[in-house]
Amino acid sequence: MIKVGILGAAGYTGGELIRLLLNHPEVEIVFANSESNAGNKVYEVHEGLIGDTELEFTSDMPWDKVDVVFFCFGHGKSEAFIKEHSIPANVKIVDLAQDFRIKGTEAYVDGAVPTSSSHDYVYGLPEIHRDAIAQCSHLANPGCFATCIQEGLLPLAKAGLLTHDIAVNAITGSTGAGQKPGATTHFSWRNNNFSVYKLFCHQHLHEICQTLNELRPDGTPTVVDTLNEGFSADGITVDFIPYRGDFARGIFCTEVVTLDKAVAADDIVALYKDFFRTAAFTHYCDKALDLKQVVNTNKCLVHVDVFGRKVVVTSMIDNLLKGAVGQAVQNMNIMFGIDEKAGLSLKAAAF
Amino acid sequence: MIKVGILGAAGYTGGELIRLLLNHPEVEIVFANSESNAGNKVYEVHEGLIGDTELEFTSDMPWDKVDVVFFCFGHGKSEAFIKEHSIPANVKIVDLAQDFRIKGTEAYVDGAVPTSSSHDYVYGLPEIHRDAIAQCSHLANPGCFATCIQEGLLPLAKAGLLTHDIAVNAITGSTGAGQKPGATTHFSWRNNNFSVYKLFCHQHLHEICQTLNELRPDGTPTVVDTLNEGFSADGITVDFIPYRGDFARGIFCTEVVTLDKAVAADDIVALYKDFFRTAAFTHYCDKALDLKQVVNTNKCLVHVDVFGRKVVVTSMIDNLLKGAVGQAVQNMNIMFGIDEKAGLSLKAAAF
Amino acid sequence: MIKVGILGAAGYTGGELIRLLLNHPEVEIVFANSESNAGNKVYEVHEGLIGDTELEFTSDMPWDKVDVVFFCFGHGKSEAFIKEHSIPANVKIVDLAQDFRIKGTEAYVDGAVPTSSSHDYVYGLPEIHRDAIAQCSHLANPGCFATCIQEGLLPLAKAGLLTHDIAVNAITGSTGAGQKPGATTHFSWRNNNFSVYKLFCHQHLHEICQTLNELRPDGTPTVVDTLNEGFSADGITVDFIPYRGDFARGIFCTEVVTLDKAVAADDIVALYKDFFRTAAFTHYCDKALDLKQVVNTNKCLVHVDVFGRKVVVTSMIDNLLKGAVGQAVQNMNIMFGIDEKAGLSLKAAAF
Amino acid sequence: MIKVGILGAAGYTGGELIRLLLNHPEVEIVFANSESNAGNKVYEVHEGLIGDTELEFTSDMPWDKVDVVFFCFGHGKSEAFIKEHSIPANVKIVDLAQDFRIKGTEAYVDGAVPTSSSHDYVYGLPEIHRDAIAQCSHLANPGCFATCIQEGLLPLAKAGLLTHDIAVNAITGSTGAGQKPGATTHFSWRNNNFSVYKLFCHQHLHEICQTLNELRPDGTPTVVDTLNEGFSADGITVDFIPYRGDFARGIFCTEVVTLDKAVAADDIVALYKDFFRTAAFTHYCDKALDLKQVVNTNKCLVHVDVFGRKVVVTSMIDNLLKGAVGQAVQNMNIMFGIDEKAGLSLKAAAF
Repeated sequence: MIKVGILGAAGYTGGELIRLLLNHPEVEIVFANSESNAGNKVYEVHEGLIGDTELEFTSDMPWDKVDVVFFCFGHGKSEAFIKEHSIPANVKIVDLAQDFRIKGTEAYVDGAVPTSSSHDYVYGLPEIHRDAIAQCSHLANPGCFATCIQEGLLPLAKAGLLTHDIAVNAITGSTGAGQKPGATTHFSWRNNNFSVYKLFCHQHLHEICQTLNELRPDGTPTVVDTLNEGFSADGITVDFIPYRGDFARGIFCTEVVTLDKAVAADDIVALYKDFFRTAAFTHYCDKALDLKQVVNTNKCLVHVDVFGRKVVVTSMIDNLLKGAVGQAVQNMNIMFGIDEKAGLSLKAAAF
Repeated sequence: MIKVGILGAAGYTGGELIRLLLNHPEVEIVFANSESNAGNKVYEVHEGLIGDTELEFTSDMPWDKVDVVFFCFGHGKSEAFIKEHSIPANVKIVDLAQDFRIKGTEAYVDGAVPTSSSHDYVYGLPEIHRDAIAQCSHLANPGCFATCIQEGLLPLAKAGLLTHDIAVNAITGSTGAGQKPGATTHFSWRNNNFSVYKLFCHQHLHEICQTLNELRPDGTPTVVDTLNEGFSADGITVDFIPYRGDFARGIFCTEVVTLDKAVAADDIVALYKDFFRTAAFTHYCDKALDLKQVVNTNKCLVHVDVFGRKVVVTSMIDNLLKGAVGQAVQNMNIMFGIDEKAGLSLKAAAF
Repeated sequence: MIKVGILGAAGYTGGELIRLLLNHPEVEIVFANSESNAGNKVYEVHEGLIGDTELEFTSDMPWDKVDVVFFCFGHGKSEAFIKEHSIPANVKIVDLAQDFRIKGTEAYVDGAVPTSSSHDYVYGLPEIHRDAIAQCSHLANPGCFATCIQEGLLPLAKAGLLTHDIAVNAITGSTGAGQKPGATTHFSWRNNNFSVYKLFCHQHLHEICQTLNELRPDGTPTVVDTLNEGFSADGITVDFIPYRGDFARGIFCTEVVTLDKAVAADDIVALYKDFFRTAAFTHYCDKALDLKQVVNTNKCLVHVDVFGRKVVVTSMIDNLLKGAVGQAVQNMNIMFGIDEKAGLSLKAAAF
Repeated sequence: MIKVGILGAAGYTGGELIRLLLNHPEVEIVFANSESNAGNKVYEVHEGLIGDTELEFTSDMPWDKVDVVFFCFGHGKSEAFIKEHSIPANVKIVDLAQDFRIKGTEAYVDGAVPTSSSHDYVYGLPEIHRDAIAQCSHLANPGCFATCIQEGLLPLAKAGLLTHDIAVNAITGSTGAGQKPGATTHFSWRNNNFSVYKLFCHQHLHEICQTLNELRPDGTPTVVDTLNEGFSADGITVDFIPYRGDFARGIFCTEVVTLDKAVAADDIVALYKDFFRTAAFTHYCDKALDLKQVVNTNKCLVHVDVFGRKVVVTSMIDNLLKGAVGQAVQNMNIMFGIDEKAGLSLKAAAF
């Protein structure tokens, strides 16, 4: 059994992680840390868990009793936490925040664990980094939008077909905004509403561009991280419009890629099917997609349509699962050499 | 033109009142008071109003320029406000809070304005108090649940048919909980969710019991305000279960009344049709109801089914309109002697 | 491995059953019968299953290859199907329709399998019939509303505390209305809407009354099935108002029971905790409930409040799981003597 | 008073039109035609109208009693209807279907009524065709998506700034799919779901391209109607992805336009403000938009962000109002020379 500790266990991702791990056949939750809830039963905060566990939140962090810890902090707190605490080297870390997702100039292509860098966190997108993940001790779990958008673009990126600006639209559920109530998560406002935010400047662009540049063959254009370099730099851009949807779970994404010249649809589809042939949770789907196919699962579904030189990709995930703790558990499974799907055969909500 | 001032104009009811009054043919909004938003355009807070008005919030309260003021404060603040400010006697007041809804022992049956009391606010339910409203200067606007439940029970109450405990279930939309975000109005929680609250002890029981006792004929049982007297007092009780629905607007209510003996359904229906014959906005409906028939209107629709000794009443309103500012404007129309429906012929949202 | 056949596999309950059984550790799906979809992949109809199974629908019914079959037909078709087909005696049957839920005069109290009757189907409510279920070959799975309402009333029924009419309100999600599109499941109508239907005459009253009468101690009043006997018969009634909610999954129910005299809340709570102590999926909850605690699980959660002589019970389930196929699998587990919870440790949707 | 007849009065748009016209100060509804509902009260079909009107559906079409008729048929039926019926020349026609929206080669720029053509219907987008509308007898009301997308692009089109392919994403509410229930309007499917349809080939591309070509200055590229000419023709394309949202009313649209060279944001904004200065219902909004600002109104709100050479336009309307009958009434007002806003000062639903 893998012995697990959870930091930040009282938040949305903490709760979802507990829900997953309680049913994971090879995991034992050793501690669920939450300063403010110490001493309370986990089911008093994550109320649906009544009957499933008598686990209590704790303010302790018994490092010597665990094999791995998950950081379910808000962004920016993981790095601070590590500096303030001495986590033994044998305790693996899976960080769900964005603190260690960006590598600087080092790329860690599959099979090659980075050896020198400002930090040693592997970017945990199993569809391209499985070998590196298997060998790492420290893992940076990808962002939700970033996961969904990357999965949609990976096959084209690797094939060198990203040569023009990419039009990305992605709609997220409200759980992406976290547990703290606010104006844009107020039910009276959000119900039956629709809006955009962080237009062309969502922070996940950093990790998306990092991956696309890592995969691109020599001679193809650089993908410009417009957050760093602005819109006048040489290269192509990811023009990402994030939308707030009026549902709680899921990300639905379309990516429109313009090719240099028209390619037969069958060839594009073959590229996708081939790329994801060995993926545990990402599947190419022949039919058009709808979001609830993936809600409450760790799947990513991808579909492609082709119109002349334009390839329209649809990709979708559950933002809390494949977009957060599901992928984190998938990564943990790989890190510990067990079945990648262990604990992740989830019944879809479907309705 | 009736010159109107609005206090607490930046909240949900304040905004809805402005939306109504901008289209009211006989009203001019003289000021919309909001300390924290003074100087801002109204449409910067109530954003949908762009293009409709250039009105700005103000911190002023020019009493000499208005005929009537609406209090859109939170509960408990109206009374405090009045003590701190000298509102001229000729300025009428419509209070949307609960501060002045309860009269103590004085009843103000239709046509008889109360002459002695701790305060002189008339309880503004037009279906029973139209004459008193027409003559009053100070009006306490009924609560949203209270309006919907009373409308469903008024004909039976007046006919002396309330002789057993009444089972009331009423589901409200999220706007009933106001503008401040919180755990039970968080979209991630409330979406597709359902729950109860203030079970058997909602504060609107005060005004409901006050009205039912006011209407009941001699010899019929007292309706016990269990909030004051508990559950062992002599008399009948209103067993009210409030539910939180996962929609934004509307209250849907069922009231189950047990009669002493079975009465023909036609007779009960006739009682309702007769009672509401002259009502401006309350209609008896022969068919079963669904909530969206009243959403974004000032209507109350009522329907009755009879099973042996049990009468099952369905009543429904829009909580922000007939349950708040719509009824407030209806009351203002009556107070100023203009058409009761002026400014209130609203297009239903319907979908 | 238990070898399973599914009839009516292309409908909502058929799909949900497949979703459950694919993850059940001791089950193999031998066939999924659907005349109209024969030859199609299951994931072409239940689209979220892509990547989970290559199973195809079949028009065959190889009885000799299965240990148990599930009938996922519409109501009324199970009985007809059995007459038209010779199902071998050694093949157990779990019927999800209402065809065999009512026994006539025979009661099958726990431990006593009925020996003579018009049919030999055991009513599969594990919280009262576990022993009978364990010994039976033919099982009638309870209705969704019926399950939720009964779970809320069982402890009081057994204790002889049901002596007055019971006020029941239960709100169901749209999946309760099945797969066929219609006016009241049209999104444009149902979204943000609320309504009642089958007021006081829902067909589940039959099975609810059957159970309550089965459990009631001698000397307590008969529970009248008003659908059969009307509202003037001697005894107490279950005054059941079904509501259509604007969510897809779940049933939220309140049952108001009037006692002969006031009982301490602690005693009532103890009654519930004791009754459900050994239940696999029904839990008493100290805190007020909200529906999403049970959505996408096989749980039933129950909570009780007491006001004078009134006991207000809240009970809730997922209508497709504990209210249909989840309970069917639970019953199958009991029938085959395996862990009652096998395949039913589901991650709640939670949001 | 303008005397109005309505054909197809029992459908969604028919009902919404009746809701509008009942409150229109200068309109009298003379007949509401519906073969299948003849003799029924209008409020028996459009149930929320109880208390508002005693109007009955009729199978008659008394042309001599009306000044104008609205066709609320399904697409393709208007043309057939006209051939089968002799509508007097003095009766104006407003057709809500798509039958007469496309002109072929004739453009009808503002002020110039077309004189020779296969038909004489003016395309009723008031923001560009007000003069032609004012003079016409026959009007083709624009499509819902088409209206929203065009409003977002008109200022750039007229300024000749559309020189590269345009990336359009538009999400529609379920009422856009009409009254007939189906798989993609089933509540159980659509609730909390999200999907695309008619990717890059929605029929509204015809009218969008027609308008953009009509407005474009000489020397700027042709906008290719890919439905007619495919994706390899010379010119620029409108790459339109329609999405199904899980709300009932509204269209939310983003249009990404790539300029030849970067233009200051202020200049683009000035272009929009100037273009819509005299528009009755289209307003430029300085702040980011959310859909409920326009729901249940006839408004179109537009907002622009600029990133380097990319202009990101957000535009939104209520699909049943500015996207259908609201704009139809606006056009009728212009055709009869009355206030363009008459009957269209609607209270937004807001929540």
